[in-house]
Amino acid sequence: TAFAQSNVTVFGVVDLAVTRGSGSISNQTGLTSGQLAASRLAFKGTEDLGNGLKAGFWLEAGINADTGTGQSTNTNNQTTGFVKNGGFTFNRRSHLSLGGNWGEIRLGRDFVPQYWNIAHYDPLDLSGVGTSQVLNSSIGGPTLVRASNSISYLYGHGFNAAAIGYGPGGFSGSGFQFQAMGYLGENPSGSATSKDGNGYGLRALYSTGNFTVSGATGRTRYAAGDTRQSNVGASYNLGVVELMGMYEWDRNGPLKARGWLAGGRVPVGVGSIRVAYSRYDSDAAGSPTAKKWAVGYVHPLSKRTALYTTFAHVSNDGPSASALNGAVTAPGKSSNGFDLGIKHSF
Amino acid sequence: TAFAQSNVTVFGVVDLAVTRGSGSISNQTGLTSGQLAASRLAFKGTEDLGNGLKAGFWLEAGINADTGTGQSTNTNNQTTGFVKNGGFTFNRRSHLSLGGNWGEIRLGRDFVPQYWNIAHYDPLDLSGVGTSQVLNSSIGGPTLVRASNSISYLYGHGFNAAAIGYGPGGFSGSGFQFQAMGYLGENPSGSATSKDGNGYGLRALYSTGNFTVSGATGRTRYAAGDTRQSNVGASYNLGVVELMGMYEWDRNGPLKARGWLAGGRVPVGVGSIRVAYSRYDSDAAGSPTAKKWAVGYVHPLSKRTALYTTFAHVSNDGPSASALNGAVTAPGKSSNGFDLGIKHSF
Amino acid sequence: TAFAQSNVTVFGVVDLAVTRGSGSISNQTGLTSGQLAASRLAFKGTEDLGNGLKAGFWLEAGINADTGTGQSTNTNNQTTGFVKNGGFTFNRRSHLSLGGNWGEIRLGRDFVPQYWNIAHYDPLDLSGVGTSQVLNSSIGGPTLVRASNSISYLYGHGFNAAAIGYGPGGFSGSGFQFQAMGYLGENPSGSATSKDGNGYGLRALYSTGNFTVSGATGRTRYAAGDTRQSNVGASYNLGVVELMGMYEWDRNGPLKARGWLAGGRVPVGVGSIRVAYSRYDSDAAGSPTAKKWAVGYVHPLSKRTALYTTFAHVSNDGPSASALNGAVTAPGKSSNGFDLGIKHSF
Repeated sequence: TAFAQSNVTVFGVVDLAVTRGSGSISNQTGLTSGQLAASRLAFKGTEDLGNGLKAGFWLEAGINADTGTGQSTNTNNQTTGFVKNGGFTFNRRSHLSLGGNWGEIRLGRDFVPQYWNIAHYDPLDLSGVGTSQVLNSSIGGPTLVRASNSISYLYGHGFNAAAIGYGPGGFSGSGFQFQAMGYLGENPSGSATSKDGNGYGLRALYSTGNFTVSGATGRTRYAAGDTRQSNVGASYNLGVVELMGMYEWDRNGPLKARGWLAGGRVPVGVGSIRVAYSRYDSDAAGSPTAKKWAVGYVHPLSKRTALYTTFAHVSNDGPSASALNGAVTAPGKSSNGFDLGIKHSF
Repeated sequence: TAFAQSNVTVFGVVDLAVTRGSGSISNQTGLTSGQLAASRLAFKGTEDLGNGLKAGFWLEAGINADTGTGQSTNTNNQTTGFVKNGGFTFNRRSHLSLGGNWGEIRLGRDFVPQYWNIAHYDPLDLSGVGTSQVLNSSIGGPTLVRASNSISYLYGHGFNAAAIGYGPGGFSGSGFQFQAMGYLGENPSGSATSKDGNGYGLRALYSTGNFTVSGATGRTRYAAGDTRQSNVGASYNLGVVELMGMYEWDRNGPLKARGWLAGGRVPVGVGSIRVAYSRYDSDAAGSPTAKKWAVGYVHPLSKRTALYTTFAHVSNDGPSASALNGAVTAPGKSSNGFDLGIKHSF
Repeated sequence: TAFAQSNVTVFGVVDLAVTRGSGSISNQTGLTSGQLAASRLAFKGTEDLGNGLKAGFWLEAGINADTGTGQSTNTNNQTTGFVKNGGFTFNRRSHLSLGGNWGEIRLGRDFVPQYWNIAHYDPLDLSGVGTSQVLNSSIGGPTLVRASNSISYLYGHGFNAAAIGYGPGGFSGSGFQFQAMGYLGENPSGSATSKDGNGYGLRALYSTGNFTVSGATGRTRYAAGDTRQSNVGASYNLGVVELMGMYEWDRNGPLKARGWLAGGRVPVGVGSIRVAYSRYDSDAAGSPTAKKWAVGYVHPLSKRTALYTTFAHVSNDGPSASALNGAVTAPGKSSNGFDLGIKHSF
């Protein structure tokens, strides 16, 4: 029994919950993966190159821990590029970095900058039945969350780090942060769709420690109509409650949509109560609108392990038929959902 | 060259054998993975939460080490849920546990309880050409070996442990053990097949150390007809030989089947000779029946590495056409097979 | 935070480059994985069994780090056996070894012996835009690079080691080395294609340290016509330049082809300039011929991390339409390509 010499940290999350969703058409009970934090297996490492220069890599695969399957990635930032055959892929992150005091250059697959304003200002961590409706109803396309074939410049955060930004869901501390990403659809030149899947994202953030504000915008080109996403968010930690909210403007070709979330977290003993209201509406025929209330409680058993429960209610207007935890509901009807789970980080 | 800090143990098996099968229609020679123990790569860890409470996770992927492919899992305990595209999946185990002196609660994908009575009382470890005919001919469905979306309660064994039960193939020691599992097919409510893939399994075991006896039963619901599986097994270690056997009753809708195995292991120097006779017959048209003799020898080179060889002969009655190691044989004809391999655990 | 006890080394490469290809029909710009060394994640270990005997395993998965996908493997050394669904597989290596002073027996999936004469005598490491045309235009079939279901005997190199052979791309040192591999297509007996995918490869090498020479030959059986591959290579390290070259004869059924490469590496400070000319032509209708010039520079930032850039130009005669980095070019036209990237080993 020798100790392994390694330049690699193996880490991840296994998160499983009993889930229930009810809707006007059908209900569903299940065991579901990642309702507080996405289940994942990842490999990362950082090398000190001297003279203040560092290199780092990060390979992170999403896992459906209820069944053992992997998750889908997208190879070209277009609808033709989804890879979803159930095998393990590094769909969550696959990147290589070079960095110093001047910032970090990052190549590969990563979250788009504007994603962080949806994720970090959601008191329910953009996971499970309580996930912000700004994500769940989004008219964004294949680059709503991540982009492949990307190059990013990041300033003002830890090197080769998971989260981008101070404030809720990110780092502690105060200061200015900036991220710019460009990505490629890798199509042959000379056709109408040559630039499909090419795009960019930008994000800037300022934090005093207790007060954080950030804005982001991104665009991906498609011959059928570009997708555009812009958002702002802010949080204020009053001690007895951390308030947070965000506002989003989206476009997908001729379609326009808006969404927002307001909520907060209240420390209760070692745990935390989380409450959010989010809504999203587009100008598609019938003006589909979805509105969600979510309330949850997280009870840590250690720094790595927590019990949690969440209840959410989503109501729909027009042709919107958003439903929770596998339930199916008719347009204009509502849906309820419930999570009770354990999250374990390793 | 730093040492890795980790909450993870990376472990597994690579097992490869030269195999030969012959049948009345065709023969096959190959290099085959997992003929003594399934080739696999796995990640596990346990966290002490204090107050006698522990958390643990286990992610285990089957590997076909002869070709580098992964293995199929099943997402919904139904025939529609097989994922078999050759990619790596955590098909063997994917679970999260919370436990204490009162036992263990385990969520995710795991072996069904009744599987252990087929596996642990097979002197040939339910692997390779000698695998018990009770498994090979079984009329059981997608939950014959494992279930996804499961919740189990386990009592009286090691926390977050591989094997369930004392006796051959399991732990050393004496005592009482119990396992109960429930699992979900996760279908929408309100249709005839809403409960398909829902099921349960129970197993109880008592061991004095040398003498072990256990019984199990399980059932999975399908609108087309439930599958049911019940079995009992026992082993007695006389020193010069460890005798073992099991009996099984199965149902799949209107079909009934029975099987049994009797065999033993004889220590020879550092090695072990293994012998088993198993048979399985159902009341399907023509009363298909398969009977197998298997004899093998395992020669350990260390605790982690062993050489092995197995010879088996299966004979068929009625429409049964069971054949070994890729051979094809006509109904009612027999088949021979041979393994010569190396198993290495890491 | 405990240190992991392990018999496993987790290692790999993440290599990403900005790439550009231009051709007479279309151009392409992209972020591409593995242009200096294939991106990969791997697990290996060696056990000392005493008495000079060792056991070892090696599981290595190719990664497309630009998108997070895995790579395809082949299960039966035939065109029917490709597994390419984007999931992670141990496509690069999946083998188990037993060895001593007498050599090494290796079972599983591995590179074919004749591959090493193409790889090791290519100054550009058979990677990226500069890859030898002997590989890129090859008429070889599914076993051109690797074979599944194989058994090898290796003499004269490190146990359970990556590279086979002294000289460029391999080990330092002098001596004689030998490798023989046999592999199986695992088809049922009794049909015309029963032996499809069966084959062998042989390679012998002698090195004085500065001067290395080797030859190899291999053959895979197919009812539609066997593939055969033979090659010789040599390198001479003069200090100011390491010269290298190889010559190849291929057959695929009735088709014959020949190729060769000549080139070298020139140390420049801590870096290395690499230059190669390679060509390949077959006797297919129209005598397709491809000729490539490649020049590159590798600048190490550490033993593990390097910056690199490569420029290549390929010209085609007859129906050959070889193009670089995703460009498309018409038969008889040329193509240019460019890589600028970072390679990081862990």
